[in-house]
Amino acid sequence: MNGADMLCDVLLVNGVDVCFANPGTSEMHFVAALDRKPAMRCILGLSEGVVTGAADGYARMADKPAATLLHLGPGLANGLANLHNARRARTPMLNVVGDHASYHLQYDAPLTSDIESLARPMSHWVGRAAGAADIRRCTEEGYAAALANRGVSTMILPADAAWGEVSLETLAPAAIPTPPAIDAEALKASVTALRSGKRVVIMLAGRAMREKPVETAGRIAASTGAALFSTSSGRSARGAGRAFVRPVPYKIDLAVEALKDFEVAICIGGPRPVTFFAYPGKPSTTLPPSCEVIQLAEHEHDLAEVLAILADALGIKPDADFVRNRFTQDDIQVPTGALTPDAISFAIGRRLPENAIIIDEGLTSVGQYPVLAPGLPPHDHLPITGGAIGIGIPLAAGAAIGAPDRKVIAMQADGSGMYTVQGLWTQAREQLDVVTVVFANSAYRILQGEMTNVGVNAYGRNAQRMLDLDAPKLDWCSLAKGLGVEAGRATTIEEFVKLFDGALSRRGPFLIEAVID
Amino acid sequence: MNGADMLCDVLLVNGVDVCFANPGTSEMHFVAALDRKPAMRCILGLSEGVVTGAADGYARMADKPAATLLHLGPGLANGLANLHNARRARTPMLNVVGDHASYHLQYDAPLTSDIESLARPMSHWVGRAAGAADIRRCTEEGYAAALANRGVSTMILPADAAWGEVSLETLAPAAIPTPPAIDAEALKASVTALRSGKRVVIMLAGRAMREKPVETAGRIAASTGAALFSTSSGRSARGAGRAFVRPVPYKIDLAVEALKDFEVAICIGGPRPVTFFAYPGKPSTTLPPSCEVIQLAEHEHDLAEVLAILADALGIKPDADFVRNRFTQDDIQVPTGALTPDAISFAIGRRLPENAIIIDEGLTSVGQYPVLAPGLPPHDHLPITGGAIGIGIPLAAGAAIGAPDRKVIAMQADGSGMYTVQGLWTQAREQLDVVTVVFANSAYRILQGEMTNVGVNAYGRNAQRMLDLDAPKLDWCSLAKGLGVEAGRATTIEEFVKLFDGALSRRGPFLIEAVID
Repeated sequence: MNGADMLCDVLLVNGVDVCFANPGTSEMHFVAALDRKPAMRCILGLSEGVVTGAADGYARMADKPAATLLHLGPGLANGLANLHNARRARTPMLNVVGDHASYHLQYDAPLTSDIESLARPMSHWVGRAAGAADIRRCTEEGYAAALANRGVSTMILPADAAWGEVSLETLAPAAIPTPPAIDAEALKASVTALRSGKRVVIMLAGRAMREKPVETAGRIAASTGAALFSTSSGRSARGAGRAFVRPVPYKIDLAVEALKDFEVAICIGGPRPVTFFAYPGKPSTTLPPSCEVIQLAEHEHDLAEVLAILADALGIKPDADFVRNRFTQDDIQVPTGALTPDAISFAIGRRLPENAIIIDEGLTSVGQYPVLAPGLPPHDHLPITGGAIGIGIPLAAGAAIGAPDRKVIAMQADGSGMYTVQGLWTQAREQLDVVTVVFANSAYRILQGEMTNVGVNAYGRNAQRMLDLDAPKLDWCSLAKGLGVEAGRATTIEEFVKLFDGALSRRGPFLIEAVID
Repeated sequence: MNGADMLCDVLLVNGVDVCFANPGTSEMHFVAALDRKPAMRCILGLSEGVVTGAADGYARMADKPAATLLHLGPGLANGLANLHNARRARTPMLNVVGDHASYHLQYDAPLTSDIESLARPMSHWVGRAAGAADIRRCTEEGYAAALANRGVSTMILPADAAWGEVSLETLAPAAIPTPPAIDAEALKASVTALRSGKRVVIMLAGRAMREKPVETAGRIAASTGAALFSTSSGRSARGAGRAFVRPVPYKIDLAVEALKDFEVAICIGGPRPVTFFAYPGKPSTTLPPSCEVIQLAEHEHDLAEVLAILADALGIKPDADFVRNRFTQDDIQVPTGALTPDAISFAIGRRLPENAIIIDEGLTSVGQYPVLAPGLPPHDHLPITGGAIGIGIPLAAGAAIGAPDRKVIAMQADGSGMYTVQGLWTQAREQLDVVTVVFANSAYRILQGEMTNVGVNAYGRNAQRMLDLDAPKLDWCSLAKGLGVEAGRATTIEEFVKLFDGALSRRGPFLIEAVID
């Protein structure tokens, strides 16, 4: 067997049995090895942004890493933006990036580049197989690092390491380091704060937003009067019957206002909230400067366990009551007539199926979804985590593969959707159960708002040409058709509801072009 | 005025008046400044691979750099693959990458990343404006480096440098370092070799493949008996009346065979030929091991001047005769019936207009174009230089902007075309005179060939799923329609000729989906 076979076998023995791929010549031995492993499911993306975004969505739902197969530096580069999002989501992932045979690098052939330099900014771990005999070590190390760090591992696979011979070995699952223990001082400080009568906010991030820890946080809030907020999380459990956790608002002024009264913040799973961007004269962090910050746990901790320990230290029983979100779906009134983001959010909310997965790259067009979410049927919310646009369509594809029995509803801004529109083809090929709602406002609407923020209210040709997406308008139905996905266009809410109902009543991908202003 | 205004003014005073862009929030002050400069033409790409690929095409034709505007690390990342191609083409370019305000970086906000690490592998020069007052220096340095290196400069623009106040200054064009002088020893060795009676090959690369130096090389070949070959060049002058320069074949065995008899190679504008990839048991370089290699000039030299000096040293007059390619366009017979790559190349060749620009990302489907090229009307050939697929559609857009009076014919493989299909929208918006011929063989055909090269002739489901693009087939006419470009589908050569003639008879973008096996 060769090194590429060994790589596949190490992946499979560790349960990594999905490989999102876009191969090239230098990975042909790896492709041939994958072809010899029917237990591995290989899924093609027509560009690497699709590959890495789908691997992110898969792991967020399957709770185990996928592998990716990327072609040298440029192939990796194309996938970096969505690796950036995965890094911020703390998604475990094992990228396999092909490289030239080691002895060929000295010739600086056309496709040669410094892959390590490209990989490092978006990876928690970067390694290179020193040869065929090193592949087992390198793969196991990268896999374990992805799980231990909860993050992105990138392994570089020289062609001669892939094609070199190795001997058969008995493989076993790699040892995964146990999560770090809770910091006793931070725990003590948290308990003291929660009993102090001070105004305390518990900031949940990352996997602290899964169903179980959210429930425990709800009990702590009910018992202590603490507020629950969330910062960044790749997957949040939302909906009726669960505890209410308020996302820190994106807009700085609203965030500062929401957090202004807190005296202590207990951060679980991520750092204190910071602003997305800096603006002249505005703060970079949104907690009051006087607020004490206790970092109780990081991403790497077992966050369900951390919250259970905190509850226990507070004397709260695992079955204690907490305030559950009321179910309000049946009360939602869908307006008639004009198709607006608000109207669409009402229509989606009114029909959202139980246990749906909401992919959220809706940006300025999500309407009232954030307000409705607590009263909708229980669902998972998968947002863009790192701000690198172009994640929605691939993330939906990956989530559908990771959780094939759940309906995926993607709220997709049009400008962002164009970045990785190729992902619709993967949805079609794999017949994934995804309904994509494209908010076709024909503009980078979020940037038009930002122009106002920098004091420009009326602008000329150059700004228009960079912020408007009209002339020509994108025709999303034709794009979807070109990529093998059925689609329909809605210009009124009635048309939208009809298309959405139709899409929910069947399996397989469907796209709705929602034409809004 | 602010730093962003200064940046625009420095660009404009240096003649950089086209900016390919995809902005984000951190670049809003730069967008606002560009909006105040009507002399700057801003061109939007719907993904950054379009932006950088178009900037490459523009500079190859306009012979001056464009600026690009990219959004932080992820925006740069999306553009890196085509920067890789530009780096290999030695295309001058000045990327402006926005970053957070300098004081905001410490908070590791969601979009923060190590931009320098991402930029370095694909840039010849990387700089960061230390503040508003540093913008003039940084821009001038980056611009001058792009021209002096003939390469990619990447300048990082922190938001607070863009919005900070600067005083008005009188600007002047930046001083561009003069090209290095020719190496006297290498010149002497070249003259000696060319007079020695040995079998000499002159290897032309980069700008040595422009019209004038090719003509001079033709005179040297005619006078000395040397052979002319070309390696990598972003723009090659081809066609009747010019000297014949044979590209070193892509396939290793053919390259070795073509070069096996040479005793001396004189390399002008680039290094000796190396193979694209390594294969077990095959060489990494294709000149015979015994061949003496003289590196007469690098990319940075004035290559027209280098060839003129060499000719002069050999006593060859500037008006000496040389063997001119015969005009054979009228002799081309277009076959009937089946649509094949060969048939398409005959049809394109038969009608190729004078002074056309051929964009070549045709890969396995270019048919007989390389054979026909010398006998076609004079034209420029712009290939993929770095092997990073997804350059064709953007390169065509940029070339059409850089040379608006010339017809652009893009030979485009389907798998590669999908990488940056978004670029068709830019062609539509700017009404660019581009005819795109998509070779729709519904496969990564080049990789199917590579599977054979690694010894796999029959393969199973996983390899099929990674190498075939069917199920579903891409519908390029719908994709083009979705992006605002008129299109037609051809399944016979008669249909192709009709569509191609129609496209040549009008201005503006048109796409032909050529369905081949």
